[in-house]
Amino acid sequence: MICKVRSSAQTELIDITAKIRDTVKSADIGQGICMLYVPHTTAAITINESADPSVKDDILMILNKIIPWKAGYRHLEGNSPAHIKSVLVGASELVAVENNRLVLGTWQGIFFCEFDGPRNRKVHVNFI
Amino acid sequence: MICKVRSSAQTELIDITAKIRDTVKSADIGQGICMLYVPHTTAAITINESADPSVKDDILMILNKIIPWKAGYRHLEGNSPAHIKSVLVGASELVAVENNRLVLGTWQGIFFCEFDGPRNRKVHVNFI
Amino acid sequence: MICKVRSSAQTELIDITAKIRDTVKSADIGQGICMLYVPHTTAAITINESADPSVKDDILMILNKIIPWKAGYRHLEGNSPAHIKSVLVGASELVAVENNRLVLGTWQGIFFCEFDGPRNRKVHVNFI
Repeated sequence: MICKVRSSAQTELIDITAKIRDTVKSADIGQGICMLYVPHTTAAITINESADPSVKDDILMILNKIIPWKAGYRHLEGNSPAHIKSVLVGASELVAVENNRLVLGTWQGIFFCEFDGPRNRKVHVNFI
Repeated sequence: MICKVRSSAQTELIDITAKIRDTVKSADIGQGICMLYVPHTTAAITINESADPSVKDDILMILNKIIPWKAGYRHLEGNSPAHIKSVLVGASELVAVENNRLVLGTWQGIFFCEFDGPRNRKVHVNFI
Repeated sequence: MICKVRSSAQTELIDITAKIRDTVKSADIGQGICMLYVPHTTAAITINESADPSVKDDILMILNKIIPWKAGYRHLEGNSPAHIKSVLVGASELVAVENNRLVLGTWQGIFFCEFDGPRNRKVHVNFI
């Protein structure tokens, strides 16, 4: 199954927990593992705190500091920082499913990480 | 299944290889994949060298350097560095299982990464 | 199944997409998930842009900057930077398989990440 995501900034963490929850419910697999996969090279997926939105800002702030926009990159398209962030955060996440519900920790939410937006993006949802 | 972990410092890598080995043995699945999942947003799980304990110190030293304790963070709880480390190291790991044994490389061990301790923590162990 | 990789530099990203494609085809599993696992503690695996080879150079340039060769490391073997890079990039990746083909995004390729070469290395390929 595919979840569509629309980003609205160059770098942005988008909480897609509700969207993935709905997809899992509609898939009706009962119990198993949900694999979330981003088919992009300048985006990523992560699981972290969803209660306070300022955590997202702090994550992006440090990523933008560690991987600066200008650093003598060789890739001429100008979006090397986005590729590097994508490598460090990663293209996939796994979450267990029980009774058609994601088994997330109390504070955990699922975030689509846009590093070269705004764009129309996709998350592949597979079940194991 | 759930493995309990007790951390004793603010940042700490705890070798849980023996604990996970025992869990895998007791699950008696024979062959498959073991999924290790941390349901926390200020901790993580990683696989790396377990022979020399000083490798753990070096990993933490660089993480603490890259993600400083003070950096004008917006999240008021004060533990943004822990959230960011958690995003970079990741909430899950996969290891193959054969004959009820983890298929790890010669030097590989499994580490629970505490980034906001000391605390009582959990690792979810699922089998595929 | 095991894919052998020979690295030729100290740090190097090696495109192993074709090799993994062939392994998947020969495994003839039809549909499922392919798990790629590096049994080493100074190497990693990642999925990112394979079209322009300069992206690899930019990824390595930033990793070498973030994790310097000299930083007062305690591990006496001298390859702590390689261990730390391995933790940040990660030991495994998952890719869906349909009709015996890897389901990769348009620009995605699979890279073996050598951080302490040159060496003979392995990638374990498991199917779920």
